[in-house]
Amino acid sequence: MSPRTGRRAGHSGTRQAILDAALRRFGEHGYEGATVRAIALDAGVDPALVHHYFGSKQRLFVAAVGFPAVPSEVLTPVVAQGRGALGPALLRALLEVWDREDDGCRLAALLRSALSNEAGMRMLRDSIVTTVLGLLPSATGADDGPLRASLAASQIIGLALGRYVIGIPELVDATRDELVAALGPNLQRSLVGPLPARGR
Amino acid sequence: MSPRTGRRAGHSGTRQAILDAALRRFGEHGYEGATVRAIALDAGVDPALVHHYFGSKQRLFVAAVGFPAVPSEVLTPVVAQGRGALGPALLRALLEVWDREDDGCRLAALLRSALSNEAGMRMLRDSIVTTVLGLLPSATGADDGPLRASLAASQIIGLALGRYVIGIPELVDATRDELVAALGPNLQRSLVGPLPARGR
Repeated sequence: MSPRTGRRAGHSGTRQAILDAALRRFGEHGYEGATVRAIALDAGVDPALVHHYFGSKQRLFVAAVGFPAVPSEVLTPVVAQGRGALGPALLRALLEVWDREDDGCRLAALLRSALSNEAGMRMLRDSIVTTVLGLLPSATGADDGPLRASLAASQIIGLALGRYVIGIPELVDATRDELVAALGPNLQRSLVGPLPARGR
Repeated sequence: MSPRTGRRAGHSGTRQAILDAALRRFGEHGYEGATVRAIALDAGVDPALVHHYFGSKQRLFVAAVGFPAVPSEVLTPVVAQGRGALGPALLRALLEVWDREDDGCRLAALLRSALSNEAGMRMLRDSIVTTVLGLLPSATGADDGPLRASLAASQIIGLALGRYVIGIPELVDATRDELVAALGPNLQRSLVGPLPARGR
């Protein structure tokens, strides 16, 4: 469904056209750089209509970016793999979602915008750590879950940035299989491997 | 040296006051959100003076953030450790630079700004991959250096974001020793460990 064909298709089409325009703008310019005026122009509507539908730029951002980034139906099969393959399975599931064109755009929008905006940053942080943490209890059963989820999140965030936002050539060009083979074991180690004793 | 004491200390003091104000603004608001007007106000100077000293916001950004982030004297001892401890040694050297308050602020400024600005993103990408790549030839001697450097860069970028920008609690609270123990072996594997054969 092209955003442009929805312009005159009633409320639902207009709302979707605004969301599509917002996703592109947030992805290309970040939260601060994307203006409601420019989004409205892209969608072919009056800025007042954007405020009517979404109330604020912040609410428009949340609606367009669509937290959380990874739906639970993607993650359920990851847990089903068991703890022996958790890292590679999680990485493959994430890459399959992200590599779909639409979700790649959504992810770039999320990451770029989140880093220029406190609320977005908090949502990004909470959604990633909570998502990974949700995979862990049945897999490890230990109380170091938050640290493991956070260590894994750091690799996940860095890979997402490098492949979809910053555009590090080797990470953009790598196939999913190559990335899973290269980084899956690292993620596995963070999630269920040995961790140092904590001195605090 | 406080930025505010330098205001009337002549050209050098004024220039430094502008740089200090710019670093704080870029760190807190990102590249797009930080205005030359606000930076000039913070530094107690006329915006025209900022343009006189730095020419453009872009040049001010480069001067304030100070690419590259990691000076070579920090990295030389890392290489001296030899390939057996390259990952943990690199991670420790980076964390020691970043954990210094001033450089933590510089890093946050760099990362937040880079993601809202194409030129900054290119500089960030090139400086990290080139830095890591510079460590590799003598250590591995193979032609998979760019892929290894890029994989390592993804973990380095993700950790820097999680600890200094996004503020993932477990990564903020962890000691350097804990992070080196937890992620050093992963970095080691990316830098000199086994990699999958490339199918392209």
